[in-house]
Amino acid sequence: MMKNNNYCVIMSGGIGSRFWPFSKESKPKQFLDFFGTGRSLLQQTFDRFNPLIPKENIYIATNGLYADLVKEQLPELNDSQILLEPTRRNTAPCIAYAAYHIRSICPEANMVVTPADHLILQEHHFLKNIHVGLNFVQQSPSLLTLGVKPNRPETGYGYIQTGDGEKGYIQKVKAFTEKPNLELAKIFFECGDFFWNSGIFLWNVNTIIEAFKCYLPDIYTRFNRGLDKYNTPEEKAFIEEEYPLCQNISIDYGIMEKADNVFMLIADFGWSDLGTWGSLHDLAEKDEFRNSSLKCKTLFIESKDNLVTLDNGKLAVIQGMEDYIIVESNNVLLICKKSEEQRIKQFVANVNIKYGTEYL
Amino acid sequence: MMKNNNYCVIMSGGIGSRFWPFSKESKPKQFLDFFGTGRSLLQQTFDRFNPLIPKENIYIATNGLYADLVKEQLPELNDSQILLEPTRRNTAPCIAYAAYHIRSICPEANMVVTPADHLILQEHHFLKNIHVGLNFVQQSPSLLTLGVKPNRPETGYGYIQTGDGEKGYIQKVKAFTEKPNLELAKIFFECGDFFWNSGIFLWNVNTIIEAFKCYLPDIYTRFNRGLDKYNTPEEKAFIEEEYPLCQNISIDYGIMEKADNVFMLIADFGWSDLGTWGSLHDLAEKDEFRNSSLKCKTLFIESKDNLVTLDNGKLAVIQGMEDYIIVESNNVLLICKKSEEQRIKQFVANVNIKYGTEYL
Repeated sequence: MMKNNNYCVIMSGGIGSRFWPFSKESKPKQFLDFFGTGRSLLQQTFDRFNPLIPKENIYIATNGLYADLVKEQLPELNDSQILLEPTRRNTAPCIAYAAYHIRSICPEANMVVTPADHLILQEHHFLKNIHVGLNFVQQSPSLLTLGVKPNRPETGYGYIQTGDGEKGYIQKVKAFTEKPNLELAKIFFECGDFFWNSGIFLWNVNTIIEAFKCYLPDIYTRFNRGLDKYNTPEEKAFIEEEYPLCQNISIDYGIMEKADNVFMLIADFGWSDLGTWGSLHDLAEKDEFRNSSLKCKTLFIESKDNLVTLDNGKLAVIQGMEDYIIVESNNVLLICKKSEEQRIKQFVANVNIKYGTEYL
Repeated sequence: MMKNNNYCVIMSGGIGSRFWPFSKESKPKQFLDFFGTGRSLLQQTFDRFNPLIPKENIYIATNGLYADLVKEQLPELNDSQILLEPTRRNTAPCIAYAAYHIRSICPEANMVVTPADHLILQEHHFLKNIHVGLNFVQQSPSLLTLGVKPNRPETGYGYIQTGDGEKGYIQKVKAFTEKPNLELAKIFFECGDFFWNSGIFLWNVNTIIEAFKCYLPDIYTRFNRGLDKYNTPEEKAFIEEEYPLCQNISIDYGIMEKADNVFMLIADFGWSDLGTWGSLHDLAEKDEFRNSSLKCKTLFIESKDNLVTLDNGKLAVIQGMEDYIIVESNNVLLICKKSEEQRIKQFVANVNIKYGTEYL
C-alpha cells in the first residue's frame, strides 16, 4: 500500500556548462557517462531509485530540448512520465508542477525530489535513508531534506544548520546558508552542526503545496488554476502558458529557508554534486602522484595532480604537467589549470565569439 | 637532350619516430600532411622536382612496408619506379642500388638524391639550384651536395665546411662535421665557412659508382655482381639476396667525408629537415605569443611558445601552458615540454611496455 504512494521526481533540465567540452548545451552532464560505466548520471539516478520506487512512479522533469535524450536513455518510461518545462525557471516552479501533476494521480503521494547529476556512493545506505525519509514524511507534514556530514571545509556547497544539541537521525533545521568562504567553511566544518545541502528533498505532495501557498503564493495561485487539467490532454497547453510566467526562484530560497517545518535526515552515503572538475578529481581513483584518468588510458611522466579524460579507448601521454584538467571530447581539447576552472564558462564565450557555435 | 639524362631518387624509407603520435611506424612522417595543405611531404617532394625532371625519371626508394602508401600517394608512378629496400641499411646501400638501377636504364644519367621528408621554401630558387647543380655534375666528375647558409647556431644539423676563402656559388668542400654542441655551433655560425648539410646530393651515376668502388668497395662489389640483372625480372630476387648483406652505413660517413671530389652548391631556398617538433615550431606561423597551431583551431589563454596540432577541424582551448608540444593523432594525445622532446622515443617504449603495440 505504502509503496504505491511513493513517487520520485528527477530534475534533469540543467545545462552543466562547467564541464564543457565534455558536456555541451545539446548534451549536458546528466546525460553523460562520466566514469565510463556504461550508464549516464541520469540513468544511474533512475537505477538507484528503482529498487524502492516502481518505475511507473518515477518522473523526469526536464527541458523540452532534452525530451528525446531522456526517452533514449530511459526507454522504460512512458512519455507521460516526462514533465516538460517550457522555459528554465529554477527549481521552485519545476517542483510545484511535479507536485500538482503527481497529486492529480495520487492525492496522498509522498515524493522524493532529486537532481539527476549527482554522484551517490554506498547505494544501500542511500536506499535505507530514502526509505526512512518517505516513512517520516508520510506521517508528518514536514519538509525533509537530506544533509551530508562534511568531511572537509568545502566552499562549493550550501550548508544546512541544525538546532542546538539536536542528536537524532532526523533533526530540526535551524537555517540554510549560502556557499561560505573558506574561513566560514572551516568554522562550519569544525562546529559539527552544519551539513552539506544535497538538494534531495522528501515530502508529501499536500505538505509542499501548502508550503507554496504560504511562501510562494504567486506560484501556488498559477498552478492551482490548472486543477482540472493535470493528467489530461489539456495539461500541456496550460503549462506552456502558465509556466513561463512563474517567478524564477529556487526551492531552497523560496521555501526551505523560510518554512518552519523543515527537517533534515543525516545521510549515510557518499555524495558529490559533481559540480566541478575539481570535485570529480577528489572522487576519482588516483595514482601515487594524485593523477586520475577517466575513461582513457594514460602514461604520466613527471606529472602530478592532473585529471585527464579523453574519449573512450584513447591514450594520453602527459609529461611535465601539474594540477591541470585535460579533457578531450566532441572535437574539442581543453587544457586548463585546475585553479582556473571557474573560467571555463568564459572560455566557452570566447570560443563562441571566435569560432561560432560549432564547438559549443 | 639533357633533360632525359636527369633522374631523381626520393629516399622515403624512414620511420620518423620523433613525431609520434602524429607519425607511426605504419605511417611515418614523409607520408603525412604536416601543414594541412592536402599533400604529404613525399607528395610535396615529388611536386617540387616534377617541373624539372620528367615524372618517369623520378624514383622512390623505400621499405617494402611502405610500397602501398607510395603507390597510393603517387599513383602517377609505375611500380617499376619504386625501388624496394628489403631491409634498412642506411643511405649508402640505398643510393648504390638506385645508381646501378638508373645506370642500367640511362648509362649517362645524372641523379639527384633527396630525402622525402624535408621542408623546402622558395621552390623557384630550389629549382634554379637543382638546374645549376645538374649542369655541374654533367660536366664534372664531382659529388655535389647542397649546403644551406645557417641563420642560427643550430645543434641539430650536421655542417659542411668549405675551403678557406672560397667565394663562388659552388665551392670545394673541406670537411663534413657531425652535429656540434652549442659552443661549437656558435663558432660555425659566426665563422661563415660552415653550411648546414641538407642531405640533397647530385652526381653522375658513373661518378658515384666510382666513389663506391674507392670508398665502399664491399658495397660496390655486391651491386656490381648484378650488372646483368638490373631492370630485368631478376632484379628483385638479386636485391632481396644481396641488399641485406650490405654494410649499414650512411653516404655521408661512407663516401662524402672521405672523397676528395666533393663540392657544395650554396642553396638559396629555405630549408628544414623537420627533424623535431621544435624545428617545426620554428617554421610554423605563430601568434604574438609565439604559439602555433597546425591543422586545428585554437584559443590560447595565458599561454606562450606552444605548438599544438590536432586532427583536422578540431579545436584546442589551452590555458596556462608555456613551451609545450600538444599533439593529438591516431587516438593518442601527447603533451610534453618542448625541451624534453628528445625523450619521445622513450615514452613510446614505455607505452609499448604498458599497453602493447595498439598505440604505436
